[in-house]
Amino acid sequence: MSVSEVTQALIKCVNFAAEKHKDQRRKNPEKTPYINHPIGVAYILTNEANVTDLNILQAALLHDTVEDTETSFDEIEVAFGSEVRKIVEEVTDDKTLAKEVRKRLQIEHAPGSSYEAKLVKLADKLYNLRDLEISAPVGWSEQRVNEYFEWSKKVVEGLRGTNSALERSLDQIFLRRNILTVNN
Amino acid sequence: MSVSEVTQALIKCVNFAAEKHKDQRRKNPEKTPYINHPIGVAYILTNEANVTDLNILQAALLHDTVEDTETSFDEIEVAFGSEVRKIVEEVTDDKTLAKEVRKRLQIEHAPGSSYEAKLVKLADKLYNLRDLEISAPVGWSEQRVNEYFEWSKKVVEGLRGTNSALERSLDQIFLRRNILTVNN
Ligand SMILES: [Mn+2]
Ligand SMILES: [Mn+2]
Repeated sequence: MSVSEVTQALIKCVNFAAEKHKDQRRKNPEKTPYINHPIGVAYILTNEANVTDLNILQAALLHDTVEDTETSFDEIEVAFGSEVRKIVEEVTDDKTLAKEVRKRLQIEHAPGSSYEAKLVKLADKLYNLRDLEISAPVGWSEQRVNEYFEWSKKVVEGLRGTNSALERSLDQIFLRRNILTVNN
Repeated sequence: MSVSEVTQALIKCVNFAAEKHKDQRRKNPEKTPYINHPIGVAYILTNEANVTDLNILQAALLHDTVEDTETSFDEIEVAFGSEVRKIVEEVTDDKTLAKEVRKRLQIEHAPGSSYEAKLVKLADKLYNLRDLEISAPVGWSEQRVNEYFEWSKKVVEGLRGTNSALERSLDQIFLRRNILTVNN
């Protein structure tokens, strides 16, 4: 793809995601627009992980659209192709399942994910844990915050060997939180 | 610039703009995140005007950061270069001036603007007028809405001869609003 085509594809994708997430806010006290999160995940990939693959970045921008908004996988495939659809499918939780089941499945599915999905998941976790270090979502107890860090650590264990910069940054966070490494 | 460099530059820019606008909302009843506007302006440029020049798209993404958030032109130059800074300067109103003066200056400065600034302004006006056709900002009377269309028409007159697709779409809006063309 040419520079022009990649430019058009990226802007189309970020606009699609922004429109889809327009009524959604983050759970932080400032109620930051949700779209800042997928944009920030894509930026972690380009800026910290040196990832510039278009499919991966589009999947990063779209990674929460199906899970959190009225968006279908078919819609994503029509607009951005089957490769992007596949990555988004891999990183989308099945919201018909109970929350605890979904969290367990994230841990179980992590090791068998594709390289592309692992990158998006690592950047997603890194963004969310950095956010959590700044401020907890409204209504979260200290215990709930701690459990989130511990659960994230278990998911990240299954994503290792994918990108050393992202894994190093995640390890620094786990170290700050005094979460012991179980298998590294 | 290579595909990778352009990709990194675009994602960096959209993340910068999203962070700067994170506490700002549009004036529509749904209080849509403000960042949807500059992203939408960039998307109008790639999707409708066939513009893929990086400087112009970065300027579109950043066009309201200095005017509406705590961002300096120097900051933009350091992060995105002097060309982007120049375009953003051209499309930034001086908020130390009274609103009516600023609106008059937009009309007066339009014809002497650079090609790049004219494109950003055309796409900005097109986005805002489409928004206004969908719903007026909270608290706006019908008269205020009409005056905004009429003022926009005067600015657009000074931007003509820049991009036929954008100008055609703007003319369709003015036609729907029954605003007569003064010089075309
Ligand atoms: Mn996410
Ligand atoms: Mn604007």
